[in-house]
Amino acid sequence: MKNQPVTIGIAGLGTVGIGVLKILTKNNGILTKKTGKSFQIKAVSARNRNKVRDIDLNGIEWIENPLDLAKINDIDIIIEVMGGSGNPSKALVEQALQNGKHVVTANKALLAMHGASLALIAEKNQVALRFEAAVAGGIPIIKTLIEGLSSNSIQRIAGVMNGTCNYILTRMETTGNSYQKIFNEAKRLGFVEADPQLDVGGIDAAQKLAILSSISFQSEINFKNIEIEGIEKISLFDIENAKAMGYRIKLIGIAQRTQHGIFQEVQPCLIPESSEISKLEGGTNMVIIDSDFIGRTSLSGPGAGQGPTASAIVSDIIDIAKGTITPVFGISAKFLKKIKKETRGIKRCYYLRLSLVDKPGALAKVATVLGENNISIDRMRQKAHRGKVAPILIVTHETTLKSIREAVAAISILDVCLETPVSIKIEEI
Amino acid sequence: MKNQPVTIGIAGLGTVGIGVLKILTKNNGILTKKTGKSFQIKAVSARNRNKVRDIDLNGIEWIENPLDLAKINDIDIIIEVMGGSGNPSKALVEQALQNGKHVVTANKALLAMHGASLALIAEKNQVALRFEAAVAGGIPIIKTLIEGLSSNSIQRIAGVMNGTCNYILTRMETTGNSYQKIFNEAKRLGFVEADPQLDVGGIDAAQKLAILSSISFQSEINFKNIEIEGIEKISLFDIENAKAMGYRIKLIGIAQRTQHGIFQEVQPCLIPESSEISKLEGGTNMVIIDSDFIGRTSLSGPGAGQGPTASAIVSDIIDIAKGTITPVFGISAKFLKKIKKETRGIKRCYYLRLSLVDKPGALAKVATVLGENNISIDRMRQKAHRGKVAPILIVTHETTLKSIREAVAAISILDVCLETPVSIKIEEI
Repeated sequence: MKNQPVTIGIAGLGTVGIGVLKILTKNNGILTKKTGKSFQIKAVSARNRNKVRDIDLNGIEWIENPLDLAKINDIDIIIEVMGGSGNPSKALVEQALQNGKHVVTANKALLAMHGASLALIAEKNQVALRFEAAVAGGIPIIKTLIEGLSSNSIQRIAGVMNGTCNYILTRMETTGNSYQKIFNEAKRLGFVEADPQLDVGGIDAAQKLAILSSISFQSEINFKNIEIEGIEKISLFDIENAKAMGYRIKLIGIAQRTQHGIFQEVQPCLIPESSEISKLEGGTNMVIIDSDFIGRTSLSGPGAGQGPTASAIVSDIIDIAKGTITPVFGISAKFLKKIKKETRGIKRCYYLRLSLVDKPGALAKVATVLGENNISIDRMRQKAHRGKVAPILIVTHETTLKSIREAVAAISILDVCLETPVSIKIEEI
Repeated sequence: MKNQPVTIGIAGLGTVGIGVLKILTKNNGILTKKTGKSFQIKAVSARNRNKVRDIDLNGIEWIENPLDLAKINDIDIIIEVMGGSGNPSKALVEQALQNGKHVVTANKALLAMHGASLALIAEKNQVALRFEAAVAGGIPIIKTLIEGLSSNSIQRIAGVMNGTCNYILTRMETTGNSYQKIFNEAKRLGFVEADPQLDVGGIDAAQKLAILSSISFQSEINFKNIEIEGIEKISLFDIENAKAMGYRIKLIGIAQRTQHGIFQEVQPCLIPESSEISKLEGGTNMVIIDSDFIGRTSLSGPGAGQGPTASAIVSDIIDIAKGTITPVFGISAKFLKKIKKETRGIKRCYYLRLSLVDKPGALAKVATVLGENNISIDRMRQKAHRGKVAPILIVTHETTLKSIREAVAAISILDVCLETPVSIKIEEI
């Protein structure tokens, strides 16, 4: 790190990139006091030079090809806020690290896919690769796991990590409106990614979980091992039934150390109303960490948005300016273990919603399938008929995701079954 | 910092000191992976050498006078867990820092009294003085304020920072037992400090608030500026009345930046039931941080106990072993501003409980006093008589702590007033 000022190049001038510029301007005095350094944006690159932006770019060099940022000699830190797991983001980050530049990124997709190899490049070149902004911007969860709780062995992390899903689920509950109606509302408000599957399909939450899991368990990041289900299947009827049983439905990412490996799931869950995580409203994120000497630590805050995300990036810049360069995922990348997928050991109770034809013997057929899959029934309720449909709610005893999936597949092809059954895990966090 | 191993001296072998030894033993492999260093306890000092301790001290040098730890050449880090704001703690920390040793302490009283001068010594000698364990051990709040949120200007911090008070208040509510009965229970369970005033008098919470306030507002630590009230005055009757109005009573430490200075109070408060902090049960701590670009970040976890406190100390040791040495209170101690006390600008509504003689004109006298102190009444209720006593509950419009204190003093000497009135701030966090 050169002496003064710390020089910065920004790739991507969307909401987050602009936010970084705003913070560096407004809180400049505090940052200099904290680091003893001044900060200078040397160059920026974005798709459209002519777009109107509410920030003054005078005196900052405009670079057409973002990859060229990695070649500018007097840039210390590259901020990558273009997004996407492929190029140009991947190439820019790789080349910047190889050229001895520190990189700060908000790109969860890139890290979830290529985190382990990027960490090796960063460590080989003795530069920082930081990504506090990639998971829950308003919560310093990366720093907490890598540094704050570094003395502890982490047993489990669980959290609500996608604000859009939490917004949709809480709005369905408070307004009594359908999933589709609230989804459209969220889209209108700009809360949904261009590809909605990233949010409502659970992909975004899973990318974040993969990052937290790697740090928590000193394992190579492994997105593919995560069992992912989104919230599209959740109906207002499920939310109301959950409530009647003392639960709220949340999209929960959970990663847990077991004797056989690491269990990683992103699934909608029924969470007891008494749990702090069930009380989370709107776009707020929360991560709960269970560790050996502390017990439980919880952090909550805004998960996205210009201010929180840009804040996380600038906090990383400050650490780099102070000279704090630590291993990317908490331990040297060469020590990261290959993750072993755990599915056997973790059993849960499940909520099942079935739509059966209203005739004798229908339920018997379902019960037979459950029995064949070693699933036993804890509670069952038949709700008031809707035309010729008999909606059946079942709470199972503990079973595995594999058994539930096989049972659901078998039930859905029964002649008495009118819709694919909906299964939701019950998580007693 | 020498190469390998990192050598440690521990002053104090109470619960926390033993906890540090346990973590360094059990999680030794992880710590070495994270830092690339091994850790060795070279020497310990405690009052009683012959006390039975559930830890093996073989191979560790026993030092009679803790001050001698500061003189041992091949010790890198001194852990001070003796407690107390005076000597020998103060002298040990000073001498260790002067001798170029890093210090990690859990001693909130020492920091609240001498934090600014100790920071100057540490920085002059280019060593670390770390104290994550001094505030809410299970929550990495010091790191969050100094590093995690370093890009933001913090507007307000508020929290439940004393688990004993929170235990007493929540147990009163759930059991319906009196303050005295639950206080005795907490004492029997070992939750209360030898001097109970430290807990129930709000001193412990205020020491912690002073530390967080200094970091948040880049100001010299100033314990004396904090307005402190404890929970001894809270009756079951108050808790029940608060509940009927939609509030719970918590001991809240709050520090807020205003245009005139820094407002700092530790007071029991009525908190809306909908607020996350009102839901905190038992010994858990929570700190809520409001900052300019993020908005609100909340952290919760165990505030005390062997595991959490020792964890915080070992996390500090790990940072030091990695070479992370940053200014003690986030900015260089010479830049810390003298704190200016703010009392004018912050107005709150107050709950007042009065015991008046049951005769005509009693209430008029009270109303006159309130009027003379510019306090207007929002709501008032007369509860069922208890013998000849008329219990009156008043909720005021917004007013200052000074006005309330003057009014309470004036009411308590009225001939119609049977007990000193109880006033509790209403804090809409």
